[in-house]
Amino acid sequence: MRPQDLSSFFDLAPAGRTLAEVDTPVPVIDLDVVAHNLSRWQARCDALGLANRPHIKTHKLAPLARAQIASGAKGITVQKLGEAEVMADAGISDLLLTFNVVGRAKLERLAALARRTDIAVVVDSDAVTEGIGWAGETAGRQIRVLIECDTGAGRCGVQSPAAAMSLARKIASSKGLRLGGLMTYPRTGGRQQMAAFLAEARDLMRADGLLVETVSTGGTPDMWKDDGLSPGMEYRAGTYIYNDRSLVASGAATTADCALTVLATVVSCPTPGRAIIDAGSKALTSDLLGLSGYGVLHGAPEAVVYAHSEEHGFVDVSKLPTPPKVGERVRIIPNHVCPVSNLFDRVVIIRGEAILGSVKVDARGTVW
Amino acid sequence: MRPQDLSSFFDLAPAGRTLAEVDTPVPVIDLDVVAHNLSRWQARCDALGLANRPHIKTHKLAPLARAQIASGAKGITVQKLGEAEVMADAGISDLLLTFNVVGRAKLERLAALARRTDIAVVVDSDAVTEGIGWAGETAGRQIRVLIECDTGAGRCGVQSPAAAMSLARKIASSKGLRLGGLMTYPRTGGRQQMAAFLAEARDLMRADGLLVETVSTGGTPDMWKDDGLSPGMEYRAGTYIYNDRSLVASGAATTADCALTVLATVVSCPTPGRAIIDAGSKALTSDLLGLSGYGVLHGAPEAVVYAHSEEHGFVDVSKLPTPPKVGERVRIIPNHVCPVSNLFDRVVIIRGEAILGSVKVDARGTVW
Repeated sequence: MRPQDLSSFFDLAPAGRTLAEVDTPVPVIDLDVVAHNLSRWQARCDALGLANRPHIKTHKLAPLARAQIASGAKGITVQKLGEAEVMADAGISDLLLTFNVVGRAKLERLAALARRTDIAVVVDSDAVTEGIGWAGETAGRQIRVLIECDTGAGRCGVQSPAAAMSLARKIASSKGLRLGGLMTYPRTGGRQQMAAFLAEARDLMRADGLLVETVSTGGTPDMWKDDGLSPGMEYRAGTYIYNDRSLVASGAATTADCALTVLATVVSCPTPGRAIIDAGSKALTSDLLGLSGYGVLHGAPEAVVYAHSEEHGFVDVSKLPTPPKVGERVRIIPNHVCPVSNLFDRVVIIRGEAILGSVKVDARGTVW
Repeated sequence: MRPQDLSSFFDLAPAGRTLAEVDTPVPVIDLDVVAHNLSRWQARCDALGLANRPHIKTHKLAPLARAQIASGAKGITVQKLGEAEVMADAGISDLLLTFNVVGRAKLERLAALARRTDIAVVVDSDAVTEGIGWAGETAGRQIRVLIECDTGAGRCGVQSPAAAMSLARKIASSKGLRLGGLMTYPRTGGRQQMAAFLAEARDLMRADGLLVETVSTGGTPDMWKDDGLSPGMEYRAGTYIYNDRSLVASGAATTADCALTVLATVVSCPTPGRAIIDAGSKALTSDLLGLSGYGVLHGAPEAVVYAHSEEHGFVDVSKLPTPPKVGERVRIIPNHVCPVSNLFDRVVIIRGEAILGSVKVDARGTVW
């Protein structure tokens, strides 16, 4: 089956006629692989009756957020206000911000967003809840809040179902807030523990007469596993749209599912086994995720980026029958694709070997 | 002695009256610490008779490049054409690009730069040399090239003094090129090996009647060490302007010398010993440089950012007498400061606790 053509979602600028004409380093994104990844996951969500709320931190591209919605996603997930603002500007109207919004400046921005779109947020303490309540009252409308639960990842979140219950009561009695349910980012491999926590919190809330509108879970590494899905009602996955070396290693994807590669040029072959490319830590990041090295060559995973400095990648080409020469192009599958999108102002969109054009990374640089 | 006031180099936009009003996460740069770091290193270069050619990849700010020149630097070092273009636009006229320029698009940009400024580059192979020669002929002027030598770092560079000599002859006979000398990025702790390689290459070239205009070495970690400085004639240091946790660990700086910290907000205190801040891998990077964790609290190095995800930093506050609460601000000294500058569109300039304003990171996002 030919994948759906996603190019109509993009307004593309020229980027050279062939990969050899595209300047490096730059991420190139294969739209057919993206379409395959989106439809495969949406089909699973549909079959399971799970609401799909993809995390756009991975791509930061308004066209791909629209493609996700068009292919069946209920809404999107964002990790910061800047991403929410960009996606609201792009016409996405159902947003979940899975990060505590804290501080006057950010709460004012949240209130402004709440006036113009449907944005839900998370809370895990009285202090954060009071701030969001202030934003809701300032906006003149109730902001939907989900209680973040620490179900094993050891990051944010209330520490027990009883604490979730206590915070739920506070939310339900806050003028500027509407209780939206429960949210967690599970520890990879920790689904059973997560499910037990969430089921207990949900049951406590229901027994108290509180509505549990949704139970939102997530994570790409475990998204294809069947255990512990209940009581999840909504799933947030981000990396699945592109996939990466870490997901290939964990079995959640194959290299054929990796939609984003970093196009680089070989700039030096100082010894027979060593090729130096123009993609270092400022292109690939230093994320290891338990792997050795910083990426592998697309089509030749035996060639590993075994070290890097800021602008140099060191590739072990000793196992390649024909090592690349100075001037040749290679494509790297990065360890972790999400922070790579965060490093580039523009990305190149391809289909197979054909260049479709380049596009601005809409939500990059929106940290502040 | 009061440090030199560097604020006159900046055209600053407002950024709040106090650190509590500045939105997070954002790097804040203390200009007095910068001034101290610049003057201390320049004084050492002057005393040693070393030309100072600071690497601007660390800060990417035209105002700080101008401040470095004003305080006595001979010129600057850049790591890619985009940085060179931005700095040339800012009026810096003596540039060394320490990266092989490869490929038609980049060589055309190099030729355009060579027409309007004094830009030198490095080469380590016939292929790269021929490309630069083409750029020089296209520009209608000779481009100065230094031969990059691999003196132990295992990155780019010719592998022996004899290979350097051979490449020097090729450069000397190329119409579009002028031989500029030798360049290396030494292995940290590998100064003696470096010095022996460079001295042999220099002597071979001199014996052949070739002029060795400069011998350019570099590296912040070893910059205060006295051994193996000769035959270096020029020194490229980057990180010294800000310093970071890795340089404190190696003894090249103290925490008081760390000019850049990442201002962050505590957004969650899920357990007594754990504080979660809004600075994760997309603010601090995942660079480890042999350290444990991703940074420490400014003023409280016993509080380590022991883990992070993309937008969350996990801080161990168990050793602090008064752990911070939700909403409080903290400042993080990152492991490696250079890639942090690469993540932010704007930085905040301070002096002690006083906010002077914010400024655009001129050369960020110039990868492509």
